Amino acid sequence: MHADNLTTPLIQLEHGDEFIGRHIGPNEHVIGGMLAAIGTASLSTLIGETVPATIRLQRPLDLPPPMPEHAALAALKTIAAKNVLKKSLIGQGYYGTHTPPVILRNLFENPGWYTAYTPYQAEIAQGRLEALLNYQQMVIDLTGLEIANASLLDEATAAAEAMTMARRVSKARGNVFFVDEAAFPQTIDVIKTRAAYFGFELVFGRPEEAAQHELFGALLQYPNARGEISDLTTAIATIKGKGGVVAVASDLMALVLLKSPGDMGADIALGSAQRFGVPMGFGGPHAAFFATREAHVRSMPGRIIGVSKDARGKTAYRMALQTREQHIRREKANSNICTSQVLLANMAGMYAVWHGPEGLRTIAARIHRLAALLAGGLGVTERDFFDSFEIRVGAGDTAKYMKAACDAGYNLRRVDEQTIGISLDETTTREDVAALLAIFGKTTPVEALDAARPCAIPASLQRREPILTHPVFNTHHTEHGMLRYLKRLQNRDLALDHAMIPLGSCTMKLNAAAEMIPVSWPEFGQMHPFAPLDQAQGYAELIDGLESQLKAITGFDAVCMQPNSGAQGEYAGLVAIRRFQAANGQGSRNVCLIPKSAHGTNPATAQMCGLEVVVVACDDSGNVDVEDLKAKAAQHAANLSCLMITYPSTHGVFEEAVKDICAIVHAHGGQVYMDGANLNAQVGLCRPADIGADVSHINLHKTFAIPHGGGGPGMGPIGLKAHLAPFMANHAVQTVAGPHGGQGAVSAAPWGSASILPISWMYITMMGGTGLTRATEIAILNANYVAAKLKDHYPVLYTGSQGRVAHECILDVRAIKAQTGVAEIDIAKRLMDYGFHAPTVSFPVAGTLMVEPTESEDKAELDRFCAAMVSIRDEIRKIELGEWTLDGSPLKHAPHTEADVIGEWTRPYSREQAVFPLPWVAENKFWPYVNRIDDVHGDRNLFCGCVPMENYATG
Amino acid sequence: MHADNLTTPLIQLEHGDEFIGRHIGPNEHVIGGMLAAIGTASLSTLIGETVPATIRLQRPLDLPPPMPEHAALAALKTIAAKNVLKKSLIGQGYYGTHTPPVILRNLFENPGWYTAYTPYQAEIAQGRLEALLNYQQMVIDLTGLEIANASLLDEATAAAEAMTMARRVSKARGNVFFVDEAAFPQTIDVIKTRAAYFGFELVFGRPEEAAQHELFGALLQYPNARGEISDLTTAIATIKGKGGVVAVASDLMALVLLKSPGDMGADIALGSAQRFGVPMGFGGPHAAFFATREAHVRSMPGRIIGVSKDARGKTAYRMALQTREQHIRREKANSNICTSQVLLANMAGMYAVWHGPEGLRTIAARIHRLAALLAGGLGVTERDFFDSFEIRVGAGDTAKYMKAACDAGYNLRRVDEQTIGISLDETTTREDVAALLAIFGKTTPVEALDAARPCAIPASLQRREPILTHPVFNTHHTEHGMLRYLKRLQNRDLALDHAMIPLGSCTMKLNAAAEMIPVSWPEFGQMHPFAPLDQAQGYAELIDGLESQLKAITGFDAVCMQPNSGAQGEYAGLVAIRRFQAANGQGSRNVCLIPKSAHGTNPATAQMCGLEVVVVACDDSGNVDVEDLKAKAAQHAANLSCLMITYPSTHGVFEEAVKDICAIVHAHGGQVYMDGANLNAQVGLCRPADIGADVSHINLHKTFAIPHGGGGPGMGPIGLKAHLAPFMANHAVQTVAGPHGGQGAVSAAPWGSASILPISWMYITMMGGTGLTRATEIAILNANYVAAKLKDHYPVLYTGSQGRVAHECILDVRAIKAQTGVAEIDIAKRLMDYGFHAPTVSFPVAGTLMVEPTESEDKAELDRFCAAMVSIRDEIRKIELGEWTLDGSPLKHAPHTEADVIGEWTRPYSREQAVFPLPWVAENKFWPYVNRIDDVHGDRNLFCGCVPMENYATG
Repeated sequence: MHADNLTTPLIQLEHGDEFIGRHIGPNEHVIGGMLAAIGTASLSTLIGETVPATIRLQRPLDLPPPMPEHAALAALKTIAAKNVLKKSLIGQGYYGTHTPPVILRNLFENPGWYTAYTPYQAEIAQGRLEALLNYQQMVIDLTGLEIANASLLDEATAAAEAMTMARRVSKARGNVFFVDEAAFPQTIDVIKTRAAYFGFELVFGRPEEAAQHELFGALLQYPNARGEISDLTTAIATIKGKGGVVAVASDLMALVLLKSPGDMGADIALGSAQRFGVPMGFGGPHAAFFATREAHVRSMPGRIIGVSKDARGKTAYRMALQTREQHIRREKANSNICTSQVLLANMAGMYAVWHGPEGLRTIAARIHRLAALLAGGLGVTERDFFDSFEIRVGAGDTAKYMKAACDAGYNLRRVDEQTIGISLDETTTREDVAALLAIFGKTTPVEALDAARPCAIPASLQRREPILTHPVFNTHHTEHGMLRYLKRLQNRDLALDHAMIPLGSCTMKLNAAAEMIPVSWPEFGQMHPFAPLDQAQGYAELIDGLESQLKAITGFDAVCMQPNSGAQGEYAGLVAIRRFQAANGQGSRNVCLIPKSAHGTNPATAQMCGLEVVVVACDDSGNVDVEDLKAKAAQHAANLSCLMITYPSTHGVFEEAVKDICAIVHAHGGQVYMDGANLNAQVGLCRPADIGADVSHINLHKTFAIPHGGGGPGMGPIGLKAHLAPFMANHAVQTVAGPHGGQGAVSAAPWGSASILPISWMYITMMGGTGLTRATEIAILNANYVAAKLKDHYPVLYTGSQGRVAHECILDVRAIKAQTGVAEIDIAKRLMDYGFHAPTVSFPVAGTLMVEPTESEDKAELDRFCAAMVSIRDEIRKIELGEWTLDGSPLKHAPHTEADVIGEWTRPYSREQAVFPLPWVAENKFWPYVNRIDDVHGDRNLFCGCVPMENYATG
Repeated sequence: MHADNLTTPLIQLEHGDEFIGRHIGPNEHVIGGMLAAIGTASLSTLIGETVPATIRLQRPLDLPPPMPEHAALAALKTIAAKNVLKKSLIGQGYYGTHTPPVILRNLFENPGWYTAYTPYQAEIAQGRLEALLNYQQMVIDLTGLEIANASLLDEATAAAEAMTMARRVSKARGNVFFVDEAAFPQTIDVIKTRAAYFGFELVFGRPEEAAQHELFGALLQYPNARGEISDLTTAIATIKGKGGVVAVASDLMALVLLKSPGDMGADIALGSAQRFGVPMGFGGPHAAFFATREAHVRSMPGRIIGVSKDARGKTAYRMALQTREQHIRREKANSNICTSQVLLANMAGMYAVWHGPEGLRTIAARIHRLAALLAGGLGVTERDFFDSFEIRVGAGDTAKYMKAACDAGYNLRRVDEQTIGISLDETTTREDVAALLAIFGKTTPVEALDAARPCAIPASLQRREPILTHPVFNTHHTEHGMLRYLKRLQNRDLALDHAMIPLGSCTMKLNAAAEMIPVSWPEFGQMHPFAPLDQAQGYAELIDGLESQLKAITGFDAVCMQPNSGAQGEYAGLVAIRRFQAANGQGSRNVCLIPKSAHGTNPATAQMCGLEVVVVACDDSGNVDVEDLKAKAAQHAANLSCLMITYPSTHGVFEEAVKDICAIVHAHGGQVYMDGANLNAQVGLCRPADIGADVSHINLHKTFAIPHGGGGPGMGPIGLKAHLAPFMANHAVQTVAGPHGGQGAVSAAPWGSASILPISWMYITMMGGTGLTRATEIAILNANYVAAKLKDHYPVLYTGSQGRVAHECILDVRAIKAQTGVAEIDIAKRLMDYGFHAPTVSFPVAGTLMVEPTESEDKAELDRFCAAMVSIRDEIRKIELGEWTLDGSPLKHAPHTEADVIGEWTRPYSREQAVFPLPWVAENKFWPYVNRIDDVHGDRNLFCGCVPMENYATG
């Protein structure tokens, strides 16, 4: 051995912090220069100038040290292995399915699909918009209705949305809503929670009993929770005859074979698209479908993708009726729905594209035949059903058979002491049927099944009309065809694998491969949410662990994992506050203070909880006007329920008075709800609970690395202080609330979108407390760097008392607009030509762009973005100087397409200026697939299904 | 229950054939039209017209029924689970490594990377060419030599190539080659096999003993198989002083810390790049690196990527010195190397890009520190080493400690009764070291390791010069940076995810996701090739199963899985023939008959086996001239060793006389080697062994769905008749040959590239006999359809007696060239503008294009390809008609780039004609990243490393 002259300084035996440098963009070598550009001495000085000392966390986060990728993956694999996978024939909206490998690998596991943002910038989102149109067309075809949205969060919340939509649409008076007593229990649970604060009275019964009541609407279920199918035409007609609006919860696979809800006269159809190729994942994420009559389209919740045309007249897709979405919310919202489940809707839509009508019919018919064979073998012959039925066993024998089934590898559904439910699915085989027969003491040999042809669908309930006749469902049936179709669509979308997406308030940070890989593990994917918990110990440990991590980060005493979007988290939080107040005899507290700067979701959520919104003014610096707050809190003290506040503010500033603000609300008997949208600026530096929040939601899809999926999934668990914990959501089927208790559910699945929780677990585990804190510091550094680089070109609207922004900054375009006519949207579109996604446009202030770079972008990428913004400012100057007219400028023609530069050219700027405006753009050109899209045309000519092939020819 | 009016015809309970329709392009709906276009009545008629009745297999393939994707995946998972994963500290060229997840997901598991073809068409391969240049630069830096190739098959064959290169380069006389006695045993094994037929005498000893011999070259190993390192400078200088050429087998990770072979004076350095992020995979595939002095570049084996410029003067990459490669082979080849391990080389290169010099140094230093701590704790202090050392134990105690280690989860290396070898690697942890110490009775607590600073690398052997200084190794260290770099490169390459790649003789069929997924399973990836076989029972079952499948398909009695490329298979087959003949007293048989139409690899391989090549003429129809064959067989009867024949012929025809041809060779005492390149046209219709072949290789990367990886990996197992089976390759460390015996190895790893065998197993399992046979029929249908659609535009050169081609067709461009000057290469480049990869250019006949569509392309894609070819013919007509000059035509300017259409335009055709020549091209435009590349410039100014950044500026 020799003296260690090799390793100076001594090489450590572990490098647990390795991932931190992979996640965070700027490294030690560049930070000095960035600080100099900002004009501050050190990172800690910058943080001191940015985050008020009064709220700073005085110690490191109480989290284990960081782990490198492979170690964290190994640790999570050990946890995952504690999940025991049996075949769950529990049904109730969750079914086994085979994800086609071509979709698994090339869509679900492809960052080109999962790291994209919500398709607000439609010109660079044509791929997933086409995929969503396919999904909508599939829903339209299968439900027999005229228009479908691009998915909702889950079947239960979709049912609740149907209820409120029924109230909007129905001309009948009153507040009675009828619910099928055989709806899924979790659906009933969520509807009860939702109805309470709308003041709706729920009446339960069989469909044919509905019309005995004076009602504004009804929810029927078909097939129902017992698996039964029956023709609802008469029941629906009777309800409608009394002015009621009828929603039918249904099942896409069943509808392949069954008469559609639309055919029966339903106004609304909804349900889960999970079994179209999306793993059960212990409850989610899955896309809920929602379809209605064309007449009701403007009352339909959720986002709708529609067809329009671009500046060249070419067919182009975009979100339809967006203005409706933004305008309706603030003052009189019935829904706070702000997201879809895009990634999962696209998987389901592609499942239909892949199998096509013939393939789906084969799958559905096989499921039915196996179910009918099993039912016949068990002597269950009196009911009509698709894939599910109930078996009567001897008195008290349920437990015995459930145990035998479990021992044989099957989870059945316990209905009562002498009734068991069974649901078959795409994964069920002949051998399964034989095994199930054997469990119940029938010894039909496997071979004997072939000849029998039982059928449990009466002719009158069988679907007659063809489905999925559009070419897209009849073309891509080979794997090469599908692979290339997916790639072609992917190429049309700009996602994080191409460039930064600097969306303010959306925290488009890295979604690391090591975080995403576990989501594909069968141990997580193939677990039914209602499986016995002793089989789900891996999930239990994962969820417990993540809850502990989140508690350490936020300072809260409890975490509720159920809300499956940020807005759902807001709702769950306000519900907890209302329940707490009611339990303390303060149910009359119904005023919610909301600062003027708040996101529209806040007032919408408050409305949904029966709260009256009182707006608090902001001062000239964008901060809450503390005097106004004081006055309004005092004025409403008797009825003050809560304040909803975002921190740092939506103006991108750490308000200094935040602790005072919380104290004022508390002093007047209110609770503080903190919107967690900007939590990424707090982690490790301060904690919502310490600042004064009583409850806050946590956007796992922003702060904790769950990808945006092109517009969903999200996850919005809430943290609560101890006094609110007993009022969090529980679940009708699986008890979730732990030692704290809990009440009615807010979402369908017990733990929300459980299968994506590994992403956040991995992120926090690999970063550790030091990494998370560093990430926050660098997020603030990056935002201040961008502000410093751009402030001479675009005024930075709000800063803190020491001139710093938090993790995002607002660039003011109003002066430019006034002087030149160049609007913020023109800059957004022009950025596409430079290969960037736009920042947030006109939120929270009209006429501005809000930039949030996140910590994951390195200096080189920030410099490119800033160079693009500066170059655009130079282009605007040419309009100011009269070199270009406004309408002749590249800003108004942006984005530019291949067709532009190939065709005739008569513009005052060159082709090169159009599409290669800076030298590095050419090295990695992203070509928008369409020119600027005409939104008004699309809304005036609303068309929300697949485009007839001849339309493509116009070009 | 109801009467089954739902499912008519009766829905089957299983649909095992589901994958067949996913793999095969044309379905029942389109086949009729295709047959009509060809002018034949039915598919069976077409096959009857194509495949001679005399050789037709008269019964279905003896394979199990097909399985759907999910069932096959489940079955394989069960097999995989029989592999027991322990930490293998065996070393010997195979080491544990962490594949960075960002590389795993976005390169290794990305069809954009793995389905690409070899980068012959460099303009649409700039992405992986840049990646390969990175790899070459990394090898140059770490070996301290001046030029590196783009990888070889494995370390052992690279060592054998170094031997033959030494003979080419050395001015010393004689046939003695010196081999370090402490070289890896598998390296020695392969060198022995290879040396035998070149007539080289091998001398073994310690490096310092080499110069005692008259030699033309030497192979030294550093670190050697015992783990020792010592300065070889003196030994090398002494050998070189005698005219010997010195190759040093080394280890990339060790070289991060160690003085380089180049620094010590070596002429050649070689080794495996496996531990740079490529899983051990039970032996492969991995990239072997190979570097040498600039002066020897033209003698270096393998492909070299070099830098040149395109028609606009922009920096562009392509394979260098290709003419050398093609010209040298036929008559006087020393090597039959035809492929690299591109996918694996790119993974290794990206591993270096990801970690950079600092990261690699940290990893290497940590490995060394742990090894030194372990050695110190075990009292091993006398040797210098990097990561491996040997421990002396009590007499006969080896087994005891090996067992204890195994029980604790570690595989060590048995050296002898009282010596054990241990090799640490990147995955070794502090806890492993403590556990290993405990196994040997040392009880050092884990915590105690931190302070000790032992070092087993003397200062004189430590690397001084910086490595990896190019910006590419110092830029992409964050995951966003790496993700976008990988995507940017991927976007520059045309792979099967974009369009068909109609390469004749290359069978670019679908590589289905379900086939690829298991390759990522740790059960397959993390197995050391020398692990105890009782831990590798999953692999054993997989390999046995695949052997059975291949035997059923080919009719052979035995299969040797060792050859890891097609050319290696040829070599292994001829070696078996020569061994068989020698064992029967016919060692003097040294004439190999090869038809004129053969691929250049055939004669090269024959030369490597010491065979004299006698060329057999072809007749005007492209078939073997049977009379000439008869004459030559008779003439050489005394010395006739064998015939090498490709079937169907490289002319794309099922020769009718093939059985006679085989019989003639047999009658004259020879053996028949069948080149399996075109096996895809035989599967299920006829079998090589039935036709008369004694041995044949099987391109798993053509016929059995292993992807081409952008130019490797391949797999070329051979099938043998019983009399040849005892002469197949065995292995020095792991016995592989089973009941048949076997002799010296041909490749480093016992079962070749074992970790990609699941791909072929899945393919065959999912297709079953019916699917495979159908695939062959449709491959023939597709080729005849293309021939029928194009024959009026380009003459089809060869057909069978009834006017049919086999699975590929040759389009004759010679008349066009003579008349217009438009060459086949112009058509190849012009196809890029239409979004297609070119067919095979000028093989097997100069001035032609050979098209093999494969069965996986559907009619729509074939129609697009044919439309492109017809459109190009129309363009050529404009030259004929004088509308365009040749040099002004799009054919000579092709491919066109973004820069072309953005810039000034003075051409006689429009921009639109240039880049959107048919309407559908615009829907999915693939933009070549560079214009046509100047090959001559590149070869005259050979530069084969990363380009200095300033070069990019020129543009």
